[in-house]
Amino acid sequence: MKTDIVVIGAGPAGLFSVFEAGMLGMHCHMVDTLENIGGQCAALYPEKPIYDIPAYPRIDAMELVNQLALQAAPFKPTYHLGQQVISISEQAEAGYRFTVKTSKHTEIACKAIIIAAGAGAFGPNRPPLAHIEDYEGKSIFYLVTRREEFRDKTLVIAGGGDSAVDWAISLAEVAKKIYVVHRRAKFRCAVESSKQLEALAKTDKVELVIPYQLSGLKGENGQLSHVIVETLEGEKRELEADILLPFFGLAMELGPIAEWGLHLHHTHIEVNSTTLATNREGIFAVGDIATYPGKLKLILCGFSEAAMAIHAIHPLVYPDKALHFEYSTSKGISK
Amino acid sequence: MKTDIVVIGAGPAGLFSVFEAGMLGMHCHMVDTLENIGGQCAALYPEKPIYDIPAYPRIDAMELVNQLALQAAPFKPTYHLGQQVISISEQAEAGYRFTVKTSKHTEIACKAIIIAAGAGAFGPNRPPLAHIEDYEGKSIFYLVTRREEFRDKTLVIAGGGDSAVDWAISLAEVAKKIYVVHRRAKFRCAVESSKQLEALAKTDKVELVIPYQLSGLKGENGQLSHVIVETLEGEKRELEADILLPFFGLAMELGPIAEWGLHLHHTHIEVNSTTLATNREGIFAVGDIATYPGKLKLILCGFSEAAMAIHAIHPLVYPDKALHFEYSTSKGISK
Repeated sequence: MKTDIVVIGAGPAGLFSVFEAGMLGMHCHMVDTLENIGGQCAALYPEKPIYDIPAYPRIDAMELVNQLALQAAPFKPTYHLGQQVISISEQAEAGYRFTVKTSKHTEIACKAIIIAAGAGAFGPNRPPLAHIEDYEGKSIFYLVTRREEFRDKTLVIAGGGDSAVDWAISLAEVAKKIYVVHRRAKFRCAVESSKQLEALAKTDKVELVIPYQLSGLKGENGQLSHVIVETLEGEKRELEADILLPFFGLAMELGPIAEWGLHLHHTHIEVNSTTLATNREGIFAVGDIATYPGKLKLILCGFSEAAMAIHAIHPLVYPDKALHFEYSTSKGISK
Repeated sequence: MKTDIVVIGAGPAGLFSVFEAGMLGMHCHMVDTLENIGGQCAALYPEKPIYDIPAYPRIDAMELVNQLALQAAPFKPTYHLGQQVISISEQAEAGYRFTVKTSKHTEIACKAIIIAAGAGAFGPNRPPLAHIEDYEGKSIFYLVTRREEFRDKTLVIAGGGDSAVDWAISLAEVAKKIYVVHRRAKFRCAVESSKQLEALAKTDKVELVIPYQLSGLKGENGQLSHVIVETLEGEKRELEADILLPFFGLAMELGPIAEWGLHLHHTHIEVNSTTLATNREGIFAVGDIATYPGKLKLILCGFSEAAMAIHAIHPLVYPDKALHFEYSTSKGISK
């Protein structure tokens, strides 16, 4: 398949790139490793309020994603989700500079590429338990999107950081019973949170299972019945459980992006601050993954970068057509 | 009076600067020549739809201004409206770099200045008629904000360009009678509009008063009764009128800003693209008035520039306090 621009990453900066491209008559395909659009906003904190989107005194992360998708929709982007771009080659058919290939064998010919991959591909650190994949998404979750799903359930929360402690406190309001499994007595969290957890542990609602680590799972058809835990000395316990919530942090990594010959600064891509061009002609980067002197990692700056990158890409897509700049107020949405 | 930052210009970029400043613990005073906040959005095209504000598939200009004002409100900016900044001096009291003076004799000591003056001070070209100021805002208007205000009224529209012709056509739907006064037979407007006006002139609704110019006003307490017009040969007519709408274009000018020793490029202020700093330490420019290589005159870029300028100003206001950057999602609005 063919398009003008492939946008890698379907978070806010990527989605707004699609809109800006459409306004200038260019079509986009989007690729994202996640199964849904919205990047971290949708996957990690959909209900979190954001206060610094211009003209929104407050907007929840998921609502922001929905509005951006709505704004891009008239330009009919093609989404390729649940797959990672694994290679970019400059062997492409006539009139196209690049061929982009994904982990699901999708091949897209395009004239320019925008990398809007945020912190890179990210995912939870998964505990090394046999057959864990059978339970994931059914009775094992790495994040909480709706507290109500855990009402009157028996939960095992594993981990010793802020996420584990904060969710134990929060979910104690709805769950039937919570076991908090941690290998040490001390939690890495705010003093106040630690006190709250200790207070809850004196009630029947919360039991601290310390010093234990996860060691196995029991259940069938994706539904857990027990979580097996073990001390360093090999002493085991079986905890009755409906749900396991492992909170061992997130792994973030650039992945294949690191191999495309782009100038990197730590895990960020160096770009020109007003064209967002990388060192490779035709490849641009916007949003959190892009860096330049004075860069601010704000969603609203990603929007501005998207607009500037799209204007810089226009002559690559339409080499013979001067861009007659018009305001959106005069032009409207015609597509 | 004293503040951290004086923002010159209360359009979208200026209003968002106040919000961003507030998020970093800095207070602003705003000065604008117009009587209301919102700049051109509010004064020239309040009902015009805008399509490229991120996460707003469509928002009318006035609604954008209202949302930005709401977002800035928790930080309690002080507004000085209907006055122009006439001078900036570096003679200020201890701890403050600048003293800003306005045309209404307001004096504000501050630590930094953001110029967000758009296209500069702008206003209508006013016809040189005796006592015109007595009628302005009562029965003489330089722009149409709501057509309904002219229902069943007798109007004199003066001018020969697009605005005069387009409004004559549009207001013919609601007005009782319209006189169109122009000094030449030919109008400077789209061919199609010219044809429509000529067709209307064959009805009782519209009369072309050609070749005449405005020469005087009659009425009392701000309410017109007649508009006096005159040919080059001195032949006069008195047109009965409730309302006069002179459309002789807008005058835009930098005004006093041109005298502050800033590096200019035509009528724009040259700035660093990521700090928005001008050549004068402590003075910054954002939005349409600012220029740098690759600059796009988009409202959304003005927002990003405001955020970057505010971050660059922080060490000037708090020289001893490192900025611990936090996301709005963690911090919220505490003030």
